[in-house]
Amino acid sequence: MAKDMTLLWGSGSPPCWRVMIALEEKGLQGYDHKLLSFEKMEHKSQEVLDMNPRGQLPSFKHGSFVLNESYGACMYLESQFKSQGNELIPRCAAEQAMMYQRMFEGLTLTQKMADVIYYNWKVPEGERHDSAVKRNKETLCAELKLWEGYLQKASGSYLAGKSFTLADVTAFPGIAYLFRFGLNEERYPKLTEYYNLLKDRPSIKTSWPPTWLDDPQAKDLLKDI
Amino acid sequence: MAKDMTLLWGSGSPPCWRVMIALEEKGLQGYDHKLLSFEKMEHKSQEVLDMNPRGQLPSFKHGSFVLNESYGACMYLESQFKSQGNELIPRCAAEQAMMYQRMFEGLTLTQKMADVIYYNWKVPEGERHDSAVKRNKETLCAELKLWEGYLQKASGSYLAGKSFTLADVTAFPGIAYLFRFGLNEERYPKLTEYYNLLKDRPSIKTSWPPTWLDDPQAKDLLKDI
Repeated sequence: MAKDMTLLWGSGSPPCWRVMIALEEKGLQGYDHKLLSFEKMEHKSQEVLDMNPRGQLPSFKHGSFVLNESYGACMYLESQFKSQGNELIPRCAAEQAMMYQRMFEGLTLTQKMADVIYYNWKVPEGERHDSAVKRNKETLCAELKLWEGYLQKASGSYLAGKSFTLADVTAFPGIAYLFRFGLNEERYPKLTEYYNLLKDRPSIKTSWPPTWLDDPQAKDLLKDI
Repeated sequence: MAKDMTLLWGSGSPPCWRVMIALEEKGLQGYDHKLLSFEKMEHKSQEVLDMNPRGQLPSFKHGSFVLNESYGACMYLESQFKSQGNELIPRCAAEQAMMYQRMFEGLTLTQKMADVIYYNWKVPEGERHDSAVKRNKETLCAELKLWEGYLQKASGSYLAGKSFTLADVTAFPGIAYLFRFGLNEERYPKLTEYYNLLKDRPSIKTSWPPTWLDDPQAKDLLKDI
């Protein structure tokens, strides 16, 4: 039980989902939590700003310690609850190296995905260019081919090898996002296999974004990637 | 001695510098290394691509384990050489939480800085807008005010408190970059104090970018931030 933890979160946000998966994996259920709406701008509410001056979700606290950065929260939870629940950092040096490498490459994947999906949201109307949209799509496509190759050559079903690690905790929410936005399953068979394997893992199934359950596919924005 | 490690690096690159500081802090001198030139596009050479399909520096190997992501390399080195050199992750949970929080906020700081400094390099000529330049500068200014506030309220001289940690290893190179590009010392007195304290730390002084020694200030691009 984790009564001394508080999570303010938004449905579908990869950073929020990472923290929720880590909490499940570490057996830290029962934390206080509150689902907020990005659409209603609740991430800019005073309640969030009091915990997180950036006005972003997740906002997460363990007692009085604030860990709003999702990667930071995941690392901290694994470190502080090492012997509880599932161990998320492999002891084997080779798998550990691979885990750290993929974990931080995951930030690049998420960024390149966001550059495509949120282009109109992030770039004011007068500054938009078809050439930038095209380039962002090509960049994401090249990135996805890298990951498809990683999974082809992997020594196990997970990103760092035979066990589920922090690399999967942090990368999976972004990969789920890709499929929600219509990624072509035939073009990326290994990513599809990985997605299908992980989506039924208990920590992931339990924390699946509630708004996605009613509306499994958002748009076919990525169908040509 | 670290004869089983290889680092391909570029002078002044914050990600390369992070790994070099971590190696010094862990007492891992004597590694094989090669200074490459970004200007000559040597980061796209076959030698780099063989280690790093992204064609980026740093490219780093420990034996056959590849760790090209600077945050990943730093985490791995601390984990594998925990009892060697300086401990870079505090044992105290409060300082550890603060370390992880600041460490990952550091990525945002570096990104916002790059959006200003590398605007013309990253955005093709026909897609540039004065409104974007202005917004990027305002965004960086707001970010720097956050960090100035963090240091004002800090319980010690370092980002996570009284000891030098991975938060400093990862954030310092970006902060040094700010001053190299003319950040106003009077406007950011705590950041200036932090920069002046850390620049003489042996691990940092030893790994100072060689191209910066002859040419300490690049441009005054950030003087109005």
